[in-house]
Formats: sequence, C-alpha cells, structure tokens
Amino acid sequence: MTSENDPLPRGFRAGAAWCGLRKDPAHPDLGLLIADRPLPAAAVFTRNELCGAHVTLCREQLALGGGLVRAVLVNAKNANCATGTQGVDDARHLCHRLAALLGCDPAHVLMVSTGVIGARLPVDRIEGALPTLVGSVRPDGFADFARAIMTTDTFAKTARTKGPGSTGPFHVAGCAKGAGMIHPDMATMLAFLLTDARANLDLHLVLRGAVERTFHRVTVDGDTSPNDTVLLWTSEEVPVAAPAGAAGSPAADPFGTAVAEVSRQLCRMIARDGEGATRLVTVQVRGAASESEAARVGRTIATSPLVKTAVYGRDPNWGRILSAAGRSGARIDIARARVWIGPVDVYRDGVPHPEHEPAAHAHLAEQEEVVLGVDLAVGPFEADVWTCDLGPDYVAINADYRS
Amino acid sequence: MTSENDPLPRGFRAGAAWCGLRKDPAHPDLGLLIADRPLPAAAVFTRNELCGAHVTLCREQLALGGGLVRAVLVNAKNANCATGTQGVDDARHLCHRLAALLGCDPAHVLMVSTGVIGARLPVDRIEGALPTLVGSVRPDGFADFARAIMTTDTFAKTARTKGPGSTGPFHVAGCAKGAGMIHPDMATMLAFLLTDARANLDLHLVLRGAVERTFHRVTVDGDTSPNDTVLLWTSEEVPVAAPAGAAGSPAADPFGTAVAEVSRQLCRMIARDGEGATRLVTVQVRGAASESEAARVGRTIATSPLVKTAVYGRDPNWGRILSAAGRSGARIDIARARVWIGPVDVYRDGVPHPEHEPAAHAHLAEQEEVVLGVDLAVGPFEADVWTCDLGPDYVAINADYRS
Repeated sequence: MTSENDPLPRGFRAGAAWCGLRKDPAHPDLGLLIADRPLPAAAVFTRNELCGAHVTLCREQLALGGGLVRAVLVNAKNANCATGTQGVDDARHLCHRLAALLGCDPAHVLMVSTGVIGARLPVDRIEGALPTLVGSVRPDGFADFARAIMTTDTFAKTARTKGPGSTGPFHVAGCAKGAGMIHPDMATMLAFLLTDARANLDLHLVLRGAVERTFHRVTVDGDTSPNDTVLLWTSEEVPVAAPAGAAGSPAADPFGTAVAEVSRQLCRMIARDGEGATRLVTVQVRGAASESEAARVGRTIATSPLVKTAVYGRDPNWGRILSAAGRSGARIDIARARVWIGPVDVYRDGVPHPEHEPAAHAHLAEQEEVVLGVDLAVGPFEADVWTCDLGPDYVAINADYRS
Repeated sequence: MTSENDPLPRGFRAGAAWCGLRKDPAHPDLGLLIADRPLPAAAVFTRNELCGAHVTLCREQLALGGGLVRAVLVNAKNANCATGTQGVDDARHLCHRLAALLGCDPAHVLMVSTGVIGARLPVDRIEGALPTLVGSVRPDGFADFARAIMTTDTFAKTARTKGPGSTGPFHVAGCAKGAGMIHPDMATMLAFLLTDARANLDLHLVLRGAVERTFHRVTVDGDTSPNDTVLLWTSEEVPVAAPAGAAGSPAADPFGTAVAEVSRQLCRMIARDGEGATRLVTVQVRGAASESEAARVGRTIATSPLVKTAVYGRDPNWGRILSAAGRSGARIDIARARVWIGPVDVYRDGVPHPEHEPAAHAHLAEQEEVVLGVDLAVGPFEADVWTCDLGPDYVAINADYRS
C-alpha cells in the first residue's frame, strides 16, 4: 500500500504556503514542486483558444530552457486569464523572483495558475510568501502541495504506482485538481506527474499517449477550461525495463503503462468529485470502427445532460444512451448494437429488454460506481470515458452570482 | 394581427382526436393535417443514426408518392422508435387505413410519432379513432392540431406570416412541438409548415435554407432526438413575387424569407419553453471567418452548462462565454474579441470591463429575453442561436424514474 504521505520519487520535493489568496490562513494557496537539479519535463496544455497567461509563459520557458525544469510554482484562486500582456509579465516576474531565491536559471522555473478569470494576480502577496514557500519543501510534502492547489475540489487527489526498472522499480506519483469549471472560480484541470524513470521513449510521446486515453476522456460538464495543464517530469534515476511487446508504443512500454495508470486513477477521482455528483460513471464503448470513434461515442454519452440526469434519478433510461451514440457521428449498426447498464443488457438485437430494467435500476441505485455500456457492432475498437451524474447541486453551485 | 384560430392557407384543414395515448380524454393525442388533393411537400429529418420508424416510412412514402402528400397523421406519447421492423409495419398499416378512409393513394399518407422510446404503438386504439379524427378536420383546426401533438410543452406553438405574391399575399402557417427530450417521454422537435405559395425555387432548397438558419440553431440540452422532423407543404395557390435581390438564393426570395421567419418564431417558442427555463437566450455571434464557424461558436455557447447555469443565476459571467467561444474550434482573435451581455460590453480590447457588470446583471435579472454576444474579430460572418437557461427544474424533470 502507498500513502499520500510517502516520499516523492527521488530528486523531487514539494511544499505549500499561504499568501492570502484564500481567506482561511489554515488552507495554503501556493504550492511548490522543486527538483534537485534541472530535470526533463513534457507538458500538454488546453486546446482552448482562450488560454491563461501561464500557458503562454510555460511554452516560452520550456523552449528557452531546453525542456528542463527546476521548479514549478502553482497558485489557487486566480487563473491569471484574459489579463493580456500584463498577466504574462506578472507570471514571468514571479518566476524570476523564485529563480533568484533558488539560485537557478529563470528559464527553468514554471508557474501555473487556476481560479477566477479576468483578475490580475496579487503579485506582491505571492512574492512576499516565496521565501516561506521555498522553506516548506520536503520529500514527503506532496499531500500539502495537493491540498494547496485545490479550488472547489472536496478532496485532494494524489495517486502512485511502480513499474519494472533495470535497477529496481521506478515510481510515478501524480497529483491533480478537479475538472469542474465552478463558481466562484473558473476552475481548471491541472495534473503533475513526477517520476524517477529514465524512459525508453520520448517523454512527450509517453505523456501524449497517456493523456489521450485518460485526461482527454474525463468530463464533468463538457467545458474545456483555458488553463488545463498536465506536466510529466522525471529525475531519470531508474532505467525502465524493456517493453514486453512491440517497441515504440507507449501502450506496450512499462513506463507508458505506469503513467497512464496514475493518470487513470486521477481522472476517476476528478469525475467522482464533479460538482453535485453522487455517482462515478464509467462509459464503456465497444465494437467501434476506430478508437477515435469509440472515444467520440463515449464523450457524447458522457456529456449528455439527459443521460447524466437519468443516472442521478437512478433511471435505466437506455434510450437516451442509444440516442446519444446515434447522434455522435460515429458508425453504429442499430439492429445489432447492444446497450448495458451494470451487469445486464437492456437493448440487444434491435429490441428492448424491459425484463432486465429492474436489475439495471438496482445497479444505479446501489452502486457508487456505475457502468453504462454500448457495443456499436461495427468493429474491434473500444474506449472508456469517465464522468459523473448531473444533480441539482450542480446547478446550485454554478448559478450563484459571483459578487 | 393573426390568431392561432385563423384559417389555414387555402387547400389545408386540420383536426384532432383522443385515442387513449394520454390519460386525460379532454386532451387530444392524435393530430391530422389534410390537403384537398395530393400536394408537394419537402421534409428534413433527424441526423441521428437511431431514427424512429416514421422517419424510415416517411422517406419511403415520399419516394413512392413522388413527393406528393394528401394527409399527415401525428400521434403524441409514443415515439415508435427502437421498435425494429415491427414499428415500420405498424406505421405503414395505419397510413393504409387512413388512406382507405380518405379514398386516396396510400403512398400519399405520412405518419409522424413522438413520445416514449422502445414501446410498440397501440395500433388498434389509433385505428379505432381514425374515423373521428377524419371527421374533426376544419380550415380553422390548426390550434386543436397544435395542442394534440404537444408532449411536455407548456403551451401550443403556432406562428404565421405573409409575403408578396403576384395575385395577392401568400401565407405560411407553422406549428411545432418542443425540443426538450424529456422524461417520461423522449420528446422530439416536430414542425409542420403549411403554405399556399407557388415557389420560384425548389421546395427542398427553401426548406433546407430555412432549417439551417433556424431549427439547426435552437438547442435546449444539446440532445438530438431520433424523431426530429420538419415538413414544408404547399397548395401552390399563389405565385410568389420575383425576388428583390439575387435570384436563386432562398435568403433573398420572399418565400424563403417567409418560411425562415415562421421557423424563427417557432424556434424562439421552443427555446422559451425549454424544461425549467426562466429565460429565452439569444446568442449573437459576429465577426466570424465563416457562417458555419459563427453557428458553431453559437452552438458551443448555447450548450455550455456553465453559461446556462450562469444565466439562471443572473451572473454576467463573460469568462464562461469567451471560454466556450475559445474551445469551439472556430477562429478567434482573443486580443481583439468583444463580449457583450444585453446592452453593454463586458470584455473588449483584451481586457475585462467590470464597470459594466452591474448593467449586465440588471439585463439578466430584469429581461425575460436576454442577449449574450461575442465578436470573434476575424471576419464578416454572423449567426444567431437560441437557447434557454439551465435551472434546477431541468434536473427535476429529467431525473424522475420512468415507472
């Protein structure tokens, strides 16, 4: 068993501090990750045309610093987004101040922000807290970091796994904050994946392979935020064992598998923690003509308000699932398709099976993790997508006036 | 002023009857439209791969009957969808029974269904009510028809307009039922457009031009139903005047303009009547690189749960609007883009304008019809999209267990 207080993979330390972005001084609002030396990192950012200042700056810093990173500063409660060139200048200034404290190249420092959109960062407050923040870092500080970066998350999210290395196991530790874009903050999905693995594959390839099958397959409300960021960062202490299967594929590589596994755990936590959610929903798509079509069907089902309210109501409303699959644009053979809820088929061979609806209802009513599945009956490809149900609390959380 | 009890365009009659699909005998559940003779019709159907039996049968009948239609039978409360070949046979049987009563070619009779998915039509009940239904038709029966086809609509939806004809004005009368796919029925959007105009243009071209700019731009919850159908049907009594502008374009043609105007009125009624809605929302997109990109941005904003809950909360949360535009995939120049809520700009020239938020809040709080706008600053194209806000009643309506 691993615990969130276990040490980080070798080469990394983490810490947290409070600078007044949150009202409660007992809840830190700044997080810091530090590497013992500049270490290789790969990042994936939001595809939104509106992007936070940190996305612009991180891209610039990673290019300037040759993909090496010494420190990552994260603030909660303020997204530094739609703040123009001033916002990028503010973030750059803070990176330079942190670099001065650490005595490192400013190009090796990143900053990541989430929170309310359209407000300037309180630069002086953050700058004033940097010495305390730098003093807080410890090898077992990941839990403090995870708590500091929360926005409306109801619990801190960390996950760990190990994999086979040629000199002993390598480690992957991940931390994320939630996906809901929630009032009063425009929250975002952030994830930080730290490892001691020396990869056989290009780090970007490993990250993209994992993100495509995990973070791109989790949805709370279908809204992509302007600040979404996933960072993979390695101290390269442990050479990864050779892949068992075909070389060159992140899915067959032990390191790719481990990064995807930690990402998958974090995605499930994000979906479970969706605003107002009472159920973690796994949408299983099978029998698709391609993996991208499988994922598209999964995302269409997982973002359908009708499907999500039905789950909230414990209603085994398979017609809504089949209809969402039908409008997704993916190929489907309606006459041979199959729909299941939990352990039972509710539509098969072109006809409904109402005799199974009581068992489907019981699954929705009794399980906190529920499964909705569809077999498109046109090919061998599949995908899983994670989401949550849609209850009245989602509306209550998102409808409050910000003032 | 026109009234819903005005006579239909010349050549048409409408009626309604009750067969027991609804519990309340005072609320008719069958509607009938009859033409004096077989008349030209054009139809647009759902793009969902899952389609109701009537969609399959209507396509077959329109091909068999050379695009001529004598009668359209509509039932509420049962979608005859996911019912396999039996469902198509049931609908065909009823068309043949109605044709026998009218003494017409069975290929000139259509049937259209909406309601719960996955249940067989009560063929005997409907067949038993056909003589009464045929006896009910009158030139001023459109309001009765509109009431009969309602599902969870809270009001019947009809609209009318006139246009210039060479022998006097031509008329267009339209009737629709709501767009929400609502428990306990999987409701659908249906619209029937009846006219006495002899068009200068191909009827399908006129209908597609209007649908693209109206019915394809209204959304309640982003779910496309398997039964969506729009029918345009003409008695060709009044030759339409020559277009003022460029010939060949439905937008410049007086008939195209009139059909789009009636469709637009019906779409606004559908959005206003969305489940749990308290606001009719018009999303105005300007400055797009193409009309399809403008419509895509409008649909992305109009289906965003974050935007819709903010409107419910009267929160002028422009960041959610800009972020939805940013993730739509359309081109946008964030630094030059503009966002407005009602009469005021809340984001302009790359920076927020918080001083205008009180006026934006007042607009959302005080107007039943609200406007959200975005100028993408990349081109001359524009589109309007209609939707409603998302309140707790949407969840309550859709989460009930069907039993």
